[in-house]
Formats: sequence, structure tokens, C-alpha cells
Amino acid sequence: MKAGEPGLLAAAAARGWPVVTFPASRLAAVPVPNPSEVVRRAVGTPSVAEAAALIEPGSVLLAAKRVSAHVTVAVARARPRGRLAVIGIGPGARDLMTPRAVAELRRAAVVAGLDAYLEQVADLLQPGTTVLASGLGAEQERAAEAVAQARAGRAVALIGSGDAGVYAMGRPALELADAAIDVTVVPGVTAALAVAAVLGAPLGHDHVMISLSDLHTAWPVIERRVAAAAEGDLVACFYNPASKKRDWQLRRALEVLAAHRPPGTPVGWVRDASRPGQTASLSTLAEFDPAVVDMHTLVVVGSSRTRVQAGRMVTPRDYRWAGS
Amino acid sequence: MKAGEPGLLAAAAARGWPVVTFPASRLAAVPVPNPSEVVRRAVGTPSVAEAAALIEPGSVLLAAKRVSAHVTVAVARARPRGRLAVIGIGPGARDLMTPRAVAELRRAAVVAGLDAYLEQVADLLQPGTTVLASGLGAEQERAAEAVAQARAGRAVALIGSGDAGVYAMGRPALELADAAIDVTVVPGVTAALAVAAVLGAPLGHDHVMISLSDLHTAWPVIERRVAAAAEGDLVACFYNPASKKRDWQLRRALEVLAAHRPPGTPVGWVRDASRPGQTASLSTLAEFDPAVVDMHTLVVVGSSRTRVQAGRMVTPRDYRWAGS
Repeated sequence: MKAGEPGLLAAAAARGWPVVTFPASRLAAVPVPNPSEVVRRAVGTPSVAEAAALIEPGSVLLAAKRVSAHVTVAVARARPRGRLAVIGIGPGARDLMTPRAVAELRRAAVVAGLDAYLEQVADLLQPGTTVLASGLGAEQERAAEAVAQARAGRAVALIGSGDAGVYAMGRPALELADAAIDVTVVPGVTAALAVAAVLGAPLGHDHVMISLSDLHTAWPVIERRVAAAAEGDLVACFYNPASKKRDWQLRRALEVLAAHRPPGTPVGWVRDASRPGQTASLSTLAEFDPAVVDMHTLVVVGSSRTRVQAGRMVTPRDYRWAGS
Repeated sequence: MKAGEPGLLAAAAARGWPVVTFPASRLAAVPVPNPSEVVRRAVGTPSVAEAAALIEPGSVLLAAKRVSAHVTVAVARARPRGRLAVIGIGPGARDLMTPRAVAELRRAAVVAGLDAYLEQVADLLQPGTTVLASGLGAEQERAAEAVAQARAGRAVALIGSGDAGVYAMGRPALELADAAIDVTVVPGVTAALAVAAVLGAPLGHDHVMISLSDLHTAWPVIERRVAAAAEGDLVACFYNPASKKRDWQLRRALEVLAAHRPPGTPVGWVRDASRPGQTASLSTLAEFDPAVVDMHTLVVVGSSRTRVQAGRMVTPRDYRWAGS
């Protein structure tokens, strides 16, 4: 280093190296920094070669250190940093899956998700991709396994229907992911948006998404949210409205809303939105029969302003509160 | 027609034609249906040629009727049925636009939307496409013009950022569209989903979308909805949180939420999600400064259960109400 050259001094200072400048006449007295101290400041260990090469946990030493008069060298292979991509594959139709989701699936070495969703994307995966399929109910375990695979240095894709961060596996995975892995989240078209497109534009103004599944959430919490939707005159979109074992929750939710909205308020439902066999229908709060609904159905209840126009459900923007 | 042949009889019956069968010996006595009555039943007018050709409103006669011993013919060009595609082009990044949106843009003869969004898709349009650009505030007029163009028989695409049916131009268009045109709605990844992906998985459980713009909605209506979100402990995503002229609404909304949630509740915001210059940050209800927000920003306030894990905002599914 040519002492006194401003660019070099600035570079040294930026690295936190101890730099003392002297008049040229005193250069012979400049203290040379201790090499191991310089290395410690730069990489966190005073060892110049092997420990520095191995500083990243999981690295493997490939060549032991060799010392010469001018340089000491050791070579290690760093463990690759793991990567978790949380990918929303959209509501079902292939042409509603984003190109970013497709690109992320193609680069994954490990893909995890519910078996039904993995089947949908099987043709997009590279040969040799490890597939971790789970059945309904094992989401938490599968999310944990996906994170563990990423921690082991692999490129992992965790997929979910719609948007993987909305009522899906992305959420438990991100609760477990730490700073040791890189995480990217690819948003997707949700079931609610696909349903709304089939019905018209029911989500044209303020709206709320509520899951009616009380498997993991106490019913009083859910009913309090439905009541809030009713009091706020929000368009309400119900996920998980019913299943074979849960047959009364939707009926109860509609009762709560009906106490605040006219009986003619539009209710729309769509089963298997954007998938083969899609079915949909419009009704009203007074006439809608919750028995038509199953676990593949989403139900949208309009606000007091929602209208049916030419067979389509539309919630307008313009709004004056009836009571104010 | 060879009387007595079951396939032909079934086909005639399916069309509602009067068919009487007789033993072969009496075939000479079969009454021949009046040709103009057959035509009236099939197309709705008794005229065999010209009126039948022109039955679709707007059709144009190309060749007047010509009569022979066996057939009468007239030729008309039917006016093509207009088509309105309401297309969500996604939050900004090209690889978050669905293939279905791209395909619909490519087939359009007329494309309408805000000028900023039209610029984003200009390279996808066919040469010769008519472009109807509007500035902010002219959405209603532009939606009406798009519908009028579809009524005139054209293939019209009306585009909106995110999902065109969510706080966008699809909604006023569908209020005007009637049975005279075909309508298709292509859902898109909304700004809220793009923002959530940047922040982590804040929409992992029940959540509400509220626009804080009081240009078209009275503030008491908006505040009542924010209060409902607070009472229901819903994750709240605020669209239109601020603009140059609207600077107090977000502060007020946060006050309403803060009365029901701990001061440490995570607040995340993202400006220009998925676009060049994207910026994002996490804060808390106690420390968040609403002054950082502008009209290109969305703000997400967690529920009482939302946590920050490794720098990401996550709302878990498992839930027990604190007070029950």
C-alpha cells in the first residue's frame, strides 16, 4: 500500500483497518498491522487461512493451508445457502398461474405441498426434483420439513393454492424460517378473486375474508368477526364455509349478517372456481340455501349496496351511510 | 324426411316440430307442416328468408331473397356480438401478470384504462388496437365508453391494476354492462397480495380491505369499518391511505385500531410493490409514522396475533380469543 494515497486510505478506513499516516520522512517507523488482527476484523476469526475459509457453518475444507513467504492459502467449499420460495399457484386454471410462479417451480430441487396441488404442477418440475406431498391436516409438518430442507442448503419450493400466504402453508413456514435461509414469496390469484371474477365484481369496495372453519379457531372468535363484518357493512367472503363435519357454521354466519342487511342482499357462491366442473349461482340472503355449499365452495355476501346487474354481482364505490 | 325413422323423429321432436306418424299405407295423407310455421318456431319469425336472416338486431341484408321451386334464400351479415373483457394486469411486475390477461389483451380491438396502466401493456397489444386512455378521476366516463364500444360490436378490454374488479374500473363497467354484450372477467394479483408477499404472510388469517379515500365515501362510513376491523381483531389492509390532499385519515384509522390492539402490534407498509423502486418497512402501532405513506403505498396492520419472525410479518392460523 502506497501510504498517503487518499483512495487507498479511504478503502482501508471503510474496512475498519487501523491506519496511521506519517510524513514521508518517518515512513520507516510505520507499524505494520498484525496480519491475524486484520483477518479477524474482516472475517471474524484471527486465523489467516483455514479457520477463515471455514467460517461459514457447514463449510468443508478441500485443501489444507499452504504457507509461502508472501501468502497463506486454504480452500473450503461453503455450504450453499438454502432458499425457500413460498409460491401461490393460483386458483386452479393453468393460465391464472403467474410466470414468476412457473419460473420458481422450475428452479426448485425440492417441492412441498398438498398432494392435489402438486399434481397440478407436476409437468413444470425439473427431472429429479424431490416431491414432498402431504394430505390435508399435515400442513404444519410439511411446512416444517420444507424449512428443514432449505436449512440443509437446498432450493425448496412450498406451494399453495391461490396465494400461499393466505389461509395456506406459507404462513406456518414463515413462522419457522429464520435468517439462515433466503426466503421469497410469490403472490398468486386467490380463490376469492377467482370467485369474484365469476360472479362479476362483488369485491368492488371494502370487503372482508373470513374462514368459517372452527377446527383451529374457536367459534366465538369467528362469530365476532362475522358480527364485525355485519356492523361495518362489509362485503363478506367466506372461506371453508362447510365440510362433511361442519354443517351449521355458514347458516349461523348468514343469520348474523341477515340481522343487519336487507333480505334481498345478493349472495353468490362458486364451487371449483376456474377448475373443471366450475359451478356458480346467485341468490339472496332470504332465499339462499346453505346446503348447496361444500368445502370446495366460496360464498360471497354483498354489502347493503351490492346489486345484481344483468346477472352479475357488483358492489359500487359511491357510498353514503344510510343512517348518517 | 323418411317418416318412421326413429332418429329423424327424435330430432324433429327436439326442435318442437309437429310430427304425426301413420302406417305406411296412409303416408299419402300425412299433412305437410306449413313452412312459415316451421320457420317461426325455429327462429321467431314466420318469414322464410329475409326476415329470418335479419332477425338479429343490427344485421345487414347482403343478398335479397331468391325463390326457386324448392328453396327460398336471403343472405344477411349479422352484427358481431360485442365483448367486454375486464382484465386485472397485476400489481406491476410483468411476471406477475397472468397468461390469461396477456391472451385477452392480444385479442382486443379496443383497450381502455388509466394511462399509466396502458403504458405497462402497450407492447402486448396488436398493431391497430384503439387505445382509450384516461387520467385519474375519469374512470367512470372511460368505463362507460368501454361498454359503449362493446355494444357497437367490438372486442373491448378494460384494464385495471391488480384485479380490475377490486377498487378499480371493472366495477363501474359491470354496473353498465347488459345482456347485449358478452362479459368476461380475468382476475389478477392485487396490490394487497403483492404487498403481503413483500412483508411475509400478514394475510395468513382473516383480514379486511378498507379504502381510506373519502373522495367518494363519507368518512363516518370508513371509520365505522375501521372500528369493525378493530372489534373483530381482523388484520387490516388500507388502500389509498394518503394523498397530497388527504393527510389525516390514516392517523385517525391507526388511533381507532390502537384502542383495541397492543402498542407492539406489527405495522407493515410497502410503496410501489413489485415495481421499480419498491420500498418497504416494518414498524409497530406505537412507533409507526404515517407521514412516510403516500398514494402509492399500502399499509397492513396486524391482528393481536400477528408476529414478526426473522424480519417477516406473519399472522398464524391457530387462535384462541383472549377474552373467552
